[in-house]
Amino acid sequence: MGIQKNRIALLIQYDGSQFNGWQVQKGGRTVQGEIETAIKVLTKESPRVTASGRTDTGVHALGQVIHFDLQKRIENRNDLVKLCINLNGILDTDVSIKNAFIVPSNFHARFSTSLREYLYLIYNHPMKSPFIRYRAMWVREKLDEEYLRKTAEHLKGELDFASFCKKSSAEVNTVRRIDGIEIKRKRDIISFQIRGTAFLHNMVRIIIGTLVEMHKENKEPEHIIEILRKKERNSSGITAPPYGLYLNRVIYEPPLTEMTSAFSSG
Amino acid sequence: MGIQKNRIALLIQYDGSQFNGWQVQKGGRTVQGEIETAIKVLTKESPRVTASGRTDTGVHALGQVIHFDLQKRIENRNDLVKLCINLNGILDTDVSIKNAFIVPSNFHARFSTSLREYLYLIYNHPMKSPFIRYRAMWVREKLDEEYLRKTAEHLKGELDFASFCKKSSAEVNTVRRIDGIEIKRKRDIISFQIRGTAFLHNMVRIIIGTLVEMHKENKEPEHIIEILRKKERNSSGITAPPYGLYLNRVIYEPPLTEMTSAFSSG
Repeated sequence: MGIQKNRIALLIQYDGSQFNGWQVQKGGRTVQGEIETAIKVLTKESPRVTASGRTDTGVHALGQVIHFDLQKRIENRNDLVKLCINLNGILDTDVSIKNAFIVPSNFHARFSTSLREYLYLIYNHPMKSPFIRYRAMWVREKLDEEYLRKTAEHLKGELDFASFCKKSSAEVNTVRRIDGIEIKRKRDIISFQIRGTAFLHNMVRIIIGTLVEMHKENKEPEHIIEILRKKERNSSGITAPPYGLYLNRVIYEPPLTEMTSAFSSG
Repeated sequence: MGIQKNRIALLIQYDGSQFNGWQVQKGGRTVQGEIETAIKVLTKESPRVTASGRTDTGVHALGQVIHFDLQKRIENRNDLVKLCINLNGILDTDVSIKNAFIVPSNFHARFSTSLREYLYLIYNHPMKSPFIRYRAMWVREKLDEEYLRKTAEHLKGELDFASFCKKSSAEVNTVRRIDGIEIKRKRDIISFQIRGTAFLHNMVRIIIGTLVEMHKENKEPEHIIEILRKKERNSSGITAPPYGLYLNRVIYEPPLTEMTSAFSSG
């Protein structure tokens, strides 16, 4: 028998502003790179780490889930808590391991889920805020949530999002399913919670940019149906900045559902 | 007749982490210094700027109020909005003018108020957060809000806070009045909202540090009465870090009450 390996899943958070995104690449500080290095420093093993999905440069994560295999024996809750604390001791302050789990060997951070939730934050106030730098998109003009909701309603369901996909993307099938878009205002922060099975490159950011642009140009909410129909990137609005975007939750089937609660203590 | 001056009050916010506090001093970047420079760049005038109260190095402000006199004619709402936008264009991203008002010539940011409100934030989670760096104190051990509330209850009213005053302070009269302490938990953030007429040097931070220390040491809530009675700094707990503290609101009499609403649009 070969050496038995543990498959470990981690719930992690990161402030994306100082990272060149998730994925390891030449000449850039990446979240994947930092975590792989920390695991190596701690365990002397060099597993490749897999995330539920990549995040672009500047994009944050409140509830990213990753997995990797370790020869080091991780047997109980105590070992898992120690693993978190030790990795956090090695990692810089802009990335944090929030929780760890022993998962079945067929668990896959990316393929074991079909539900992802993104959060986009807009700071809506005539004057800039010193506290939301790199945390939200700033819109000076007063936005009406009711308008945003009415317009976003047309994006729910299984639709061809070709107009909401980065132009250089090589994606052939641009049909995706959005299960929910919840738009809330709390004082000057407008939050968009978008849930779906999978997203095209820049899809959430182009949706937000389009909603804001349509609002500024006083377009009818139904104008977004036309944009969808055109199936070309030119018909939609700007790509909203990355620093307003957060990978909020990745939802797995029980008993792994607990992994997705970024803010639960323990 | 001499030149008529306008007295202007500004509502401002700042992230204190990169400032050596409010007050101008030799060899440090201060909020007062940055604002006085911005006013000079914009108006070619050099008024001294007065705040409702100083904040120490690292302490933030969500609703600081300041005043100064200007020869430049500021006559209506439009001029005031322009003043904000122009100053924000000169100021760095960690300080922001949120609103401006023409106030009577006898208005004084410090002496026209007798009610100040501070906010202190604790991030209460076993693992660190990449998003609260320099925004809240991190406490790993689970804190019970009920215990914190019961203990803090004993600090309400007019009391001698000598035990909660920085040792090097030259303050002779250490009697102060706390009108309210509201403690709330929202997920992993515990917020303390403390309202009073005036505060001793480091008073809020020593109160927070003492509450957390008593909690960790399983002291009875009533133990804080003993600490008060001793009237010496040694009897209380640590000084909680400055980056969890926010000057939240300074409350003025009508018609200037509107100034205190940091987050209202307009």
